[in-house]
Amino acid sequence: MVLRRLTRAALAALVGLGAPALAQTPPPTSLQAILNASPAVDWRPIDPANTVYLTLPQGRVVIELAPTFAPHHVANLKLLAKARFFDGLFVVRSQDNYVVQWGDAEAKKPLGGASRSLKAEFDHPYGPAEGFTPLPDADTYAPRVGFTDGFPAARDPLTGEAWLTHCYGMVGAGRDLDADSGSAAELYAVIGQAPRQLDRNVTLLGRVLEGMDILSALPRGHGDLGFYQTPGERIPIISIRLGSDIPAAEQVRLQALRTDSATFAAVVQNRRFRKDAFYKTAAGRIDVCNVPLPVRPVK
Amino acid sequence: MVLRRLTRAALAALVGLGAPALAQTPPPTSLQAILNASPAVDWRPIDPANTVYLTLPQGRVVIELAPTFAPHHVANLKLLAKARFFDGLFVVRSQDNYVVQWGDAEAKKPLGGASRSLKAEFDHPYGPAEGFTPLPDADTYAPRVGFTDGFPAARDPLTGEAWLTHCYGMVGAGRDLDADSGSAAELYAVIGQAPRQLDRNVTLLGRVLEGMDILSALPRGHGDLGFYQTPGERIPIISIRLGSDIPAAEQVRLQALRTDSATFAAVVQNRRFRKDAFYKTAAGRIDVCNVPLPVRPVK
Repeated sequence: MVLRRLTRAALAALVGLGAPALAQTPPPTSLQAILNASPAVDWRPIDPANTVYLTLPQGRVVIELAPTFAPHHVANLKLLAKARFFDGLFVVRSQDNYVVQWGDAEAKKPLGGASRSLKAEFDHPYGPAEGFTPLPDADTYAPRVGFTDGFPAARDPLTGEAWLTHCYGMVGAGRDLDADSGSAAELYAVIGQAPRQLDRNVTLLGRVLEGMDILSALPRGHGDLGFYQTPGERIPIISIRLGSDIPAAEQVRLQALRTDSATFAAVVQNRRFRKDAFYKTAAGRIDVCNVPLPVRPVK
Repeated sequence: MVLRRLTRAALAALVGLGAPALAQTPPPTSLQAILNASPAVDWRPIDPANTVYLTLPQGRVVIELAPTFAPHHVANLKLLAKARFFDGLFVVRSQDNYVVQWGDAEAKKPLGGASRSLKAEFDHPYGPAEGFTPLPDADTYAPRVGFTDGFPAARDPLTGEAWLTHCYGMVGAGRDLDADSGSAAELYAVIGQAPRQLDRNVTLLGRVLEGMDILSALPRGHGDLGFYQTPGERIPIISIRLGSDIPAAEQVRLQALRTDSATFAAVVQNRRFRKDAFYKTAAGRIDVCNVPLPVRPVK
């Protein structure tokens, strides 16, 4: 095991596949103990103006938006939410081990002041000011993976581009065949094994913070691609609202662990070297989509 | 992109992380066209004596067993099924993005002639006769990944060991803290992002061929670790039967694409280099848990 780990680390150093930013030592404690001991400064408040609430008969789903990666799609989604565009539309698709999809499947409803289509935001050149906490482990799909602003992300140092990764709970903008045909009037969330082949092929614009247990347990559709076959199977969208447009008393106040904090680094190490009464063999590495991104209610 | 691919392939060749067994050329056709054109010899019949049927009120789940990797757990599960051990027990846990678990949570029910605990079957030395179709792409968790007997698997050439990987739909034997405390009297299936840190920590013994859409959409439990909090939430197990113990007319006759076939190699290449009217950028690589393992009814 040690031999393999050194070999891979040496390789990574050779070609820059991953900078070993974190010390290769086992954690002394449990994940919960790490979080319990974390200083308040390691947590960031979730900005209600940067979230949308998707309300279904089954409950509420809270999505944090990613304007660093998809500024135009995020802005368009905010316009759509303000126009109450989604209210009365449906969840139209639930494909097992893939995605749940909702919104205007027929692209017929007037969009208010929002755009019908937007230029793709699949990736962007990252500047020196854009934060990135790299993982030290090799990734199958991308030269480097890590976290930016609390989102799982990837980078290619050769081209200088950054993009979000299709991990469980990530939310994207459905589109037609044309790369520039998405608008955020139709959205999807990943409910299975990370479909990383979609990275840089669809615009990701956010992540579910709360309510994945609702989205992921919706009945599967049995039409092509998991679309529901009858109108009666569709799940009505009660509303999609910008968090800041909801009365303060009804807002859910959340905070997320900063992915550039020392506590997060400890969380990553804890999961990479998980070995305890149950785990007999520590993996010694972790996939970007297996790293927990802790969120908690504000006390 | 080409530069990166060559660099990684060169690296893989240097340290033997992955043999580029498949040509690096894009596929000429669609996945469905590849399957439609496949010769009958590339498919293997699923042996009813090597499957178990889990029947829930929501429907039937068909699981293929993996005796190459877990011979004693598979044999024990067959004894339990023959003794009708599971009938009247429950699905007791549904943890979002992790596992659904069922069977004897309290370990109180008599096991008939089956064993109460078995030596762990986390990995085993692979011999020259054990088939393995490697993937050419780097894996975060294992030195080599690929497929054996239709199951996703990993190998370490340095130690000569092989093991199954925790991909979506894989089925394992729950256990207590002791590595040798599992028996297949309690089982789980992966319903989210592959929890590969469990590889070599729990005995995997099979894979769901049919019915994942039922298991994965069960309501989530909201107790610790996704356990249901009240008896009323538990989902009753109508029965678990060995496929060959079911009347022939009620058996589902399936066949699976052989993972050592030319058609499977074409499927893998098609998914690695997926580029079509929708996909603008081909990933050029694939995770072992993203490779489709086609199963179809026998005509």
